[in-house]
Amino acid sequence: MNTRWITSRDNPHLVRLRKQLRSPGGYRSTGQVWLEGDHLCRAAVQRGWALPQLFATEAMAHTHADLVSLAADVVLLPPALFDGLSALESPAGLAALIDLPAGAAPEPATPSVVLDGLQDAGNVGSILRSAAALGVRQVLALKGTAALWSPKVLRAGMGAHFGLRLVEGLTVDDLDGLALPLVATSSHASGTLPAADLPSPCAWVLGHEGQGVSADLMARCSLTVRIPQPGGEESLNVAAAAAICFYESLRRLQ
Amino acid sequence: MNTRWITSRDNPHLVRLRKQLRSPGGYRSTGQVWLEGDHLCRAAVQRGWALPQLFATEAMAHTHADLVSLAADVVLLPPALFDGLSALESPAGLAALIDLPAGAAPEPATPSVVLDGLQDAGNVGSILRSAAALGVRQVLALKGTAALWSPKVLRAGMGAHFGLRLVEGLTVDDLDGLALPLVATSSHASGTLPAADLPSPCAWVLGHEGQGVSADLMARCSLTVRIPQPGGEESLNVAAAAAICFYESLRRLQ
Repeated sequence: MNTRWITSRDNPHLVRLRKQLRSPGGYRSTGQVWLEGDHLCRAAVQRGWALPQLFATEAMAHTHADLVSLAADVVLLPPALFDGLSALESPAGLAALIDLPAGAAPEPATPSVVLDGLQDAGNVGSILRSAAALGVRQVLALKGTAALWSPKVLRAGMGAHFGLRLVEGLTVDDLDGLALPLVATSSHASGTLPAADLPSPCAWVLGHEGQGVSADLMARCSLTVRIPQPGGEESLNVAAAAAICFYESLRRLQ
Repeated sequence: MNTRWITSRDNPHLVRLRKQLRSPGGYRSTGQVWLEGDHLCRAAVQRGWALPQLFATEAMAHTHADLVSLAADVVLLPPALFDGLSALESPAGLAALIDLPAGAAPEPATPSVVLDGLQDAGNVGSILRSAAALGVRQVLALKGTAALWSPKVLRAGMGAHFGLRLVEGLTVDDLDGLALPLVATSSHASGTLPAADLPSPCAWVLGHEGQGVSADLMARCSLTVRIPQPGGEESLNVAAAAAICFYESLRRLQ
């Protein structure tokens, strides 16, 4: 473990990092993701991720010495400089910079969820949590979907990221490599989810909060099902619909 | 329909309204709820709610004349004054002030969900949407739960509020009037949700995002069930868990 201080706002490393963190998808240009807070850092470690670099205020480094000792390189910052990097309303004073695995492609025949243009970070994070909990092991995000490793999605994901295979920036054609039937929900489908002959494993397809699944992707789905909604015109939030679909797949397995 | 202009920031009506809207639960002191935007206003009208008072910029009043004509009293505001009332990042230029029914108590034997201290407005709104869509007709919020009619919960609820019976500010003892078995999820329960002998109708009990259901309330539950989670230590978002529970109750009915 190397420890050093950075005390100048103009330190080139900090300048680059601040620039990266200004954009939710800034990690895509560097391949490094900012994990802020004790919970996320420990969730990563528990799943076997390395912490190449850790940033902390002196006070947090002191109270979290066990976590800090796991990092290869530790950068101590005055609180004001840490706060300038933070994406949180209440900066945590502790964050790791971890390396994303490069160039992933869909892993064939793995229970998956396909995200087609979802925009809300809270929804995406909730879907990742449900996927990790309910046995959906891979998340495939098409171009235009919210950045999976953004601070907001990480926060809503509560550590689910580290137990999942995450691939983003995909095209519809890339899904051919998945070699699994695609299943979407649709309020126009004739068959209902409880009665459907669900393939197992399958890939659940979830669409944009307003526009739903694109026509191109819908045409590739081998099944569409309707979640019964006796309440009438109301619709489900996409993360709620996802949880129901994952649960139904899991229930059939048991 | 009476139409009048308010052009002064210091108009006493506006001053009172601004004060009310500064707090998410401000409507509790007046019994009047601010519904901002075309979608929410129309959702209320479709469910038979009256629009006693409507606030709009001149431009919005013009383009939404059909909606405006339904209001008893229309107040036109310069855009800057409307924006000063708005709770949205992009003010909608159109809002209704509706009257809440007074002094509601739990309606006995109605499929329900009990919210015990939930804090996140997005979660509460998503749970209301799932309840309305999946046949849970009543929402009972215990003291300490986020204000159900706050602008953020209304936005996340997408109109679900108007199809539900909503009662808030309740104590645990008030739930006796419900005369239904209470069912909670717990990761410590021995029985799983798919295998449980679920009462129907029942009241699903959902707890605070971090602390879960209070011990006092848990002791009154006649059943606790576990949502199977093969993924291990990850947990579900409370709104995702709610959707799964409501779906399972519905699936058994069909």
